[in-house]
Amino acid sequence: MTKSRNGTAIDGYRRQFLKTAALGGVALGGAGLLAAKAPAAEGTEASSLIPPPMLVQGKPVASPPYGAPSEFERNVVRLANDRTPTPFSSWSFTPLQDLHGSITPNGLFYERNHNGVPAINPDHHGILIHGLVERPLLFSMDDLMKFPSISRIYFLECSGNSSSEFTKPSADIRWSHGLLSCAEWTGVPLAALLQEAGIRPEGKWILAEGADAAAMTRSIPIEKAMDDALIAFAQNGERLRAEQGYPVRLLLPGYEGNMSVKWLRRLKVGNAPFMTREETSKYTGLLPDGHSSQFNFVMEAKSVITRPAAGGTISGGPGLIQISGLAWSGSGKIKQVDVTVDGGRSWHLATLDVPILSKALTRFRMPWRWDGSPAIIASRVTDESGYVQPTREALLAARGPQFHYHYNAIAPWKIDAGGKVTNVYAAGA
Amino acid sequence: MTKSRNGTAIDGYRRQFLKTAALGGVALGGAGLLAAKAPAAEGTEASSLIPPPMLVQGKPVASPPYGAPSEFERNVVRLANDRTPTPFSSWSFTPLQDLHGSITPNGLFYERNHNGVPAINPDHHGILIHGLVERPLLFSMDDLMKFPSISRIYFLECSGNSSSEFTKPSADIRWSHGLLSCAEWTGVPLAALLQEAGIRPEGKWILAEGADAAAMTRSIPIEKAMDDALIAFAQNGERLRAEQGYPVRLLLPGYEGNMSVKWLRRLKVGNAPFMTREETSKYTGLLPDGHSSQFNFVMEAKSVITRPAAGGTISGGPGLIQISGLAWSGSGKIKQVDVTVDGGRSWHLATLDVPILSKALTRFRMPWRWDGSPAIIASRVTDESGYVQPTREALLAARGPQFHYHYNAIAPWKIDAGGKVTNVYAAGA
Repeated sequence: MTKSRNGTAIDGYRRQFLKTAALGGVALGGAGLLAAKAPAAEGTEASSLIPPPMLVQGKPVASPPYGAPSEFERNVVRLANDRTPTPFSSWSFTPLQDLHGSITPNGLFYERNHNGVPAINPDHHGILIHGLVERPLLFSMDDLMKFPSISRIYFLECSGNSSSEFTKPSADIRWSHGLLSCAEWTGVPLAALLQEAGIRPEGKWILAEGADAAAMTRSIPIEKAMDDALIAFAQNGERLRAEQGYPVRLLLPGYEGNMSVKWLRRLKVGNAPFMTREETSKYTGLLPDGHSSQFNFVMEAKSVITRPAAGGTISGGPGLIQISGLAWSGSGKIKQVDVTVDGGRSWHLATLDVPILSKALTRFRMPWRWDGSPAIIASRVTDESGYVQPTREALLAARGPQFHYHYNAIAPWKIDAGGKVTNVYAAGA
Repeated sequence: MTKSRNGTAIDGYRRQFLKTAALGGVALGGAGLLAAKAPAAEGTEASSLIPPPMLVQGKPVASPPYGAPSEFERNVVRLANDRTPTPFSSWSFTPLQDLHGSITPNGLFYERNHNGVPAINPDHHGILIHGLVERPLLFSMDDLMKFPSISRIYFLECSGNSSSEFTKPSADIRWSHGLLSCAEWTGVPLAALLQEAGIRPEGKWILAEGADAAAMTRSIPIEKAMDDALIAFAQNGERLRAEQGYPVRLLLPGYEGNMSVKWLRRLKVGNAPFMTREETSKYTGLLPDGHSSQFNFVMEAKSVITRPAAGGTISGGPGLIQISGLAWSGSGKIKQVDVTVDGGRSWHLATLDVPILSKALTRFRMPWRWDGSPAIIASRVTDESGYVQPTREALLAARGPQFHYHYNAIAPWKIDAGGKVTNVYAAGA
């Protein structure tokens, strides 16, 4: 068995990292890939060496009936925030560095709860629509299911995702960007329910209240409610998980995550925003001029390289790697993603996975031949509105030091000679 | 609190099933929806009644670290086939009747295993490409990750899905259609690996072999391998589940499921099909003229109503319901789905969820006002090639009584006066 490594340019990735196996009677197995000998299923010189898993009968079907990840992936889990005073008003982070594609599996979807995850029996749950409406209505879950529903793929991002980056940048992408996920949601367009209740002419805002112990409440502008808002009851094909709002949640595509009120129990139509706790003391930002920025709904376009990513290491040393990451915009579709591997001196157009969907995560990729010397890599998204992801410097200048939400700056990762990847802005990096 | 039910036509579904809640000082709660009294988060006449989950702190974040479905959905599981001689060469069925949208969560993805699910350590696994190639190659998983990958949403359907319907139709959609699922797959285009190895001019077929105890093998035409075939390592964002081929599988979009060989260890290029067990004694069909139909790759266009579905019941009695189901084609995109509610006398165009993707499940929906009398409902798909899903009679006439694969006929469900839903063709239905 011979091995070859031939250098190549970025776009000429072929042949540089492959092991060429000369099979002319030379036994494979030196790499531990093929170990045991056994009769072959189909006789060839190669199949005369059979790996151990083929020699024992595997597990039966449906074990367990609701499946679980491979035992070799047991470290791929949500990461609970250990920096909050309690685990009830807290976050758990999606392990972006271990994910592929654009869908987040439900078991790894990030959480932001304000007073724990309630256990709600759907048979005892309803949604009330009242306030400035012609006909106050109370819907059971069975009632809701009788409305026409739709399914759409949308991202959710916490308003506070990356907030560490304003002041004390995180050394690890799990902390810096993990309050971000994406799923296929199924639900009833909120517009259909509101049409049923009949909004009075003076109705301009809607209070959404959750049935959790925080009574999470936010004010939704009527225009969003009548646009693409969903009353969602399913996620990635199955009913919502408890921590995602079971049995039903609001889903406001492109808006900061907390507004997609979970465990939804009530919608009250009013003529002005309701000035709830979560839009006065929280989820507002102090600007440099002393004013507060309130009602920061739309999550601005953002992107991040998830592999290689801060907190990780490039394994296998210099050679070709596939840079991969996620891009999204609360305003619509992604138009393009540029990637730099020289600290921003030059940028290269990344490949985007299709279909590119509005207000959904889009996976981007770019092959790169790392020569083993220190480098700074980063991605920069432009959305269909023409908005370009800002640098951290530009963002800080605009927002000032007291603003702790909607951090969407370019995230540069530094790669050292050993392949260790760190956040350029993190202490000690 | 008053309730009203006013009849309406199919397209005028509004107001017929809603409970109107007169809130003028009348206490809600008769329906058990709102039970306990407590201080309100935002003072209104409605929020003065607070449901019990709001009065207790919920569960902390990331409990468990890899999330699980709601405790109220514990019956939504894969159903192991109890009709096979062993649970190792067997199936588990996806509970289509409980699913929404088009993505199947990984925990509910159907299985077809030929000798159990192996536990394969990815560090000891490789893929060999040999036979009629210029450069025999052995890839470790790390090597594979260095190739450019893509993510795409594709369905998988077992060749034997609905095979019961040829001879002894099933009373329940779980048995009749549950060998069908859909996911976002991430992998390396097989064409890229084959290009690396260099296929000799006489190479026309590829043997794919799995590292399971069945040494599952199938022959793949080179045209498919060079088209949209993937070497897939992730599903719905995370690495493959063990039962879906961890750490790596072949994925042949639109082809019968067994050809997407799981636990892939070897690809051998040859000049003819390899005539493996699974394409001679199995996965072929005896035609009426005595010939065998071999290499039935593409899954023909098919659709089925999943709600209401055989084995279930329409709850809540007569009134408006939302008919919903799935349509797909191994040849490309779905063009349209028609639904009948009168046993095929008239057909109505269903709404299709967007985006409509090639070789993926497409969710269709149609509102229907059921008047409580017995009815027969069914769906019929037309794909972009113009192919129309056949009736059972037409399919049986073409295939004959000895053919047990690729059943794709229209599936009519009978609804009786009590709302019970049965398979029209099942015994006793």
